[in-house]
Amino acid sequence: MAVYTHVSAEALHEFLKAYDMDEVLAFKGIAEGVENSNYFLQTNKGRFILTLYEKRVAEKDVPFFLALTAHLCARGFPCPKPIADKSGRVQSVLEGRPAALIQFLEGVSIHKASPEHCAQVGNVLARLHLASQGFSLTRANTQGMSTWRGLLQVCEKKIDTYPHDVRDELHAAMDGIEQNWREDLPGGIIHADLFPDNILFRGGELKGVIDFYFACNDSLAYDIAICMNAWCFTPEWNFAPDNARALLGGYQQARALQKDEIDALPLLCRGAAIRFALTRLHDLIYHVDGSLVTPKDPMEYLVKLRFHDGIKDIKGYGLEP
Amino acid sequence: MAVYTHVSAEALHEFLKAYDMDEVLAFKGIAEGVENSNYFLQTNKGRFILTLYEKRVAEKDVPFFLALTAHLCARGFPCPKPIADKSGRVQSVLEGRPAALIQFLEGVSIHKASPEHCAQVGNVLARLHLASQGFSLTRANTQGMSTWRGLLQVCEKKIDTYPHDVRDELHAAMDGIEQNWREDLPGGIIHADLFPDNILFRGGELKGVIDFYFACNDSLAYDIAICMNAWCFTPEWNFAPDNARALLGGYQQARALQKDEIDALPLLCRGAAIRFALTRLHDLIYHVDGSLVTPKDPMEYLVKLRFHDGIKDIKGYGLEP
Repeated sequence: MAVYTHVSAEALHEFLKAYDMDEVLAFKGIAEGVENSNYFLQTNKGRFILTLYEKRVAEKDVPFFLALTAHLCARGFPCPKPIADKSGRVQSVLEGRPAALIQFLEGVSIHKASPEHCAQVGNVLARLHLASQGFSLTRANTQGMSTWRGLLQVCEKKIDTYPHDVRDELHAAMDGIEQNWREDLPGGIIHADLFPDNILFRGGELKGVIDFYFACNDSLAYDIAICMNAWCFTPEWNFAPDNARALLGGYQQARALQKDEIDALPLLCRGAAIRFALTRLHDLIYHVDGSLVTPKDPMEYLVKLRFHDGIKDIKGYGLEP
Repeated sequence: MAVYTHVSAEALHEFLKAYDMDEVLAFKGIAEGVENSNYFLQTNKGRFILTLYEKRVAEKDVPFFLALTAHLCARGFPCPKPIADKSGRVQSVLEGRPAALIQFLEGVSIHKASPEHCAQVGNVLARLHLASQGFSLTRANTQGMSTWRGLLQVCEKKIDTYPHDVRDELHAAMDGIEQNWREDLPGGIIHADLFPDNILFRGGELKGVIDFYFACNDSLAYDIAICMNAWCFTPEWNFAPDNARALLGGYQQARALQKDEIDALPLLCRGAAIRFALTRLHDLIYHVDGSLVTPKDPMEYLVKLRFHDGIKDIKGYGLEP
């Protein structure tokens, strides 16, 4: 949750002139988005999210995020459309920060995912992978596999708050992941953070995908693995095979998986689990006092990593090969 | 800015049944309100603020705040109306916290106050003082004059981060305030925190007053003094006599001030200045790392205190007696 940069009513008024908007009906900082300052804005032209990009989002990446969502919207994909100003630009500056005005999407995040939710999540993920084909910009995965060992080593310096065998366990898991990782799977743009917080539902129907600030180029099936971890476990961290079946089924309605993608899923799920275990561990250990972001529990992803360690192939998930 | 308590979509759905609302179109935590968790909520019945009362708001005070704003709304005063559920209750429970659904008011806070703004602020303050007459509940001012010396002593324990003469200056100011304080001025319900953040404007027109969580019984003219400090100084902390003239003029259009209220204004302004200097100093010194509230600069109010120290009567403000 975050509003890092305060926007004065006067600066907002100036900013909106470029969009031919002059009447502000509502303007509230919203406690959403770890990386940016976000405001709910209602004007005479409708409802919007106003985003100011903060330090954690590299300024050079802002055009990538805005162009990607514009590309997806143009192909009918349900994500927030960047609004162009009178001169056609979607990126502006406000209070000294890169800023963008973005369409407001209705809907709310759900927290207990049902198979019906998961089928839609899988389907929208496949549609994201298809709709982003032909997108001309690329962005490396700054949280990709090659970064995890280094992250583990940074965490280790203070990892004595954890039992020693956790350290050994994480290194052993990284050994297996590095030895078996597949760089040859079908690739493209992935969302890379498609957690329940980033999907809006209305009346049980998926209305939109938000928060593309981890989107990058990587293996498409790795994005599925992230979703399996995020959507296919109960709140008690037990695997929910009905959710996984629905998620993969929904995905394959839009894009058929290749055999090597299916075979790689347990490995990719281990990778996705260790990625979030490590970034959460890092955020917990190096949490800046006074930070607006509440650290999440890395144990959740350690538990998921252990579960996937016991899975040899997709039948281990209770799924058909 | 704050969302202390997370509300799940499922708990929200249950909560809204009592209000005959079943469709959630938007639900966003908002970075507003130091004392509570606030959400922007849009349902099939309209737009609302959902407030969860956190520890800093004494649970026993919640009925006072809700009844006060309901009383004011019933008298046409522009403030957010608490929404009654099907059984007529305005106070409920959500995620284990006292909670209320409150009307959403359009408008935005302004940050550079003009005399035109101040005239409306003064007028709405007088209307608040009049409309709350006959309200049956009372609440002591927990930040009233009798608490300031104790607050100063608590701050003193760590006040060596400030120059020593500031300590002497604050004690001397408190001596003068205590010796001259007036308990016999016309009293009633005061807002006690009518800063620019708590007034919504639209197109230059005052649309509403929000955040009654410091409202209490005290001298009405003390509420004017709080507003003079909050609205009648430039961003560089210089006194703005045109703003003060407009504020007092706007006030007296609705409620004429007695001579003893006018005479007491410099004293009350000193009191209001030291109150906010001390609470800001306290928040800065005892700021909990990881707190979601950014401390404000106490120096601003020390500068205002010094200004008022040089004022003998209302002519010192450049105002007509």
